[in-house]
Amino acid sequence: MTFEKRLEARAAEFEAGLGDALDAAASRHAGLPPRLADAMRHAVMSGGKRIRPFLVTETAIALGSDAAAAQPAAIALELVHCYSLVHDDLPAMDNDPLRRGKPTVWKAFDEWTAILAGDALLTLAFEHLGGAACPDLDDKRRLSLVTGLALASGGRGMVGGQCLDLEADKLGQPKVATQEHVQRLQAMKTGALFRFACEAGAVVAGAGTTETTAMARFGAKLGAAFQLADDLLDIEGDAETVGKATAKDAAAGKATLVGLKGLAAARAFLAEIESDALNEISGIGSRADVLRETLRFACARRK
Amino acid sequence: MTFEKRLEARAAEFEAGLGDALDAAASRHAGLPPRLADAMRHAVMSGGKRIRPFLVTETAIALGSDAAAAQPAAIALELVHCYSLVHDDLPAMDNDPLRRGKPTVWKAFDEWTAILAGDALLTLAFEHLGGAACPDLDDKRRLSLVTGLALASGGRGMVGGQCLDLEADKLGQPKVATQEHVQRLQAMKTGALFRFACEAGAVVAGAGTTETTAMARFGAKLGAAFQLADDLLDIEGDAETVGKATAKDAAAGKATLVGLKGLAAARAFLAEIESDALNEISGIGSRADVLRETLRFACARRK
Repeated sequence: MTFEKRLEARAAEFEAGLGDALDAAASRHAGLPPRLADAMRHAVMSGGKRIRPFLVTETAIALGSDAAAAQPAAIALELVHCYSLVHDDLPAMDNDPLRRGKPTVWKAFDEWTAILAGDALLTLAFEHLGGAACPDLDDKRRLSLVTGLALASGGRGMVGGQCLDLEADKLGQPKVATQEHVQRLQAMKTGALFRFACEAGAVVAGAGTTETTAMARFGAKLGAAFQLADDLLDIEGDAETVGKATAKDAAAGKATLVGLKGLAAARAFLAEIESDALNEISGIGSRADVLRETLRFACARRK
Repeated sequence: MTFEKRLEARAAEFEAGLGDALDAAASRHAGLPPRLADAMRHAVMSGGKRIRPFLVTETAIALGSDAAAAQPAAIALELVHCYSLVHDDLPAMDNDPLRRGKPTVWKAFDEWTAILAGDALLTLAFEHLGGAACPDLDDKRRLSLVTGLALASGGRGMVGGQCLDLEADKLGQPKVATQEHVQRLQAMKTGALFRFACEAGAVVAGAGTTETTAMARFGAKLGAAFQLADDLLDIEGDAETVGKATAKDAAAGKATLVGLKGLAAARAFLAEIESDALNEISGIGSRADVLRETLRFACARRK
């Protein structure tokens, strides 16, 4: 099976579980207002590569667990990712009317519904980890997932990264963005959830501290590679292949590592990150081959 | 000590702990952007009666535990309450520029900062329950608090109630609000967190299922009494005593139980709720006297 096929197959499998989780929430939550349930579903069941759930699952498998045990953590993480897109798209934030060719939640419903749907999805993620949806894990591992997800997605993680991004975008701060600043912003805004994805897979598999930390580092580096490859694609990509307007970042005056380092140095840095990431999991052997392929996919992608 | 003095003393004690928790989050979270930290502090350290933390603490004490053990749950609950105010005040929601005479977060900062500060506070609440801030409780009780808080504050709880409220306000739905609808809305929007406050106190104290359920029901009824007394105050209160414009609900065309039942029947209903609530904790004896006083305070308040 090619890597792309595996990613697609896992996404299909994952989405069935995700849909069930939303149905279960709606029926268990007899009080969930239909408008809110519809907006939550619109936000969550809108395609995407489901790369974060894929990482949770494949990390858990690489460390001896299975997809079923990883599913609750994968669902919770994807709920957080989806809520963040709903809030990011709002007029007061990125003001995006479309996502993957479909109206965003605030456009399909309205702003207040989008704010509340995001709030409800974030809350549902923690309900999902704490509750009966997570029967394969003991209390210690569930709590570790709750804390890990909160740290990755809160003020020092994803939300903090979004704050730094909007400070640059709306307030022009800092006036001169250094490479360090851009790396920190990206590590928070996108890296933190990738980091948690691999950490969560290790927690699900009951891995020890050393292995869990190594996996978390691998995830963080994979996230950095993913982001840098995206920035390179923005400059190098042919608009037709990429399927979206290219050189968008430059036009928007957005500071990226490619802009700060130059094209050749950015490509070399990507190779360095890839090599560092491989080192993190060098002790795991062939069981982690899917993770290595994921890294290669992230670094080499052309769209 | 009079009840009001006790409430004030607890609020002062609680706020010291709450401030410490925010400081700890800011220092532990080296990456927390200062703008976000400031907005979170603005949202949280802005006065208020701190009635929900008071209920967590007093319920825990009534069942044999103490204020220190109850503090993490009290803080998590207040963080959720404060985030909900930040989002509710947004232009797309209630469009309130002032709260307790001070600019709301979106007014003092801007809309995107307010959205992110709310998101970060909600996430911090779960971090707080899952993590090291909660040393006195075993894993089982921490998880029970995570799940309970998520259920109370999510789509079938507080966020769902806010959705129903805005459906009425913005979309005029339902066209005719029945008493059942108004009661359901209020039970979700404000009742769910009151319910959780007393449930959490019981969980902290390690109470059994019967006692925990009775406490949760007491909390829900206390919340309903609080809301109904507020509605009565809106009609009956003298603007000078209440400190805000009265008959605001009627002017805004908002459906309330007082409007639907009439004044005399609403007063009788409040007495009925008070009596039902007292019944829920009749088995607990004098240890629960502060909770009984809280109920009396909620029902009899004049401002």
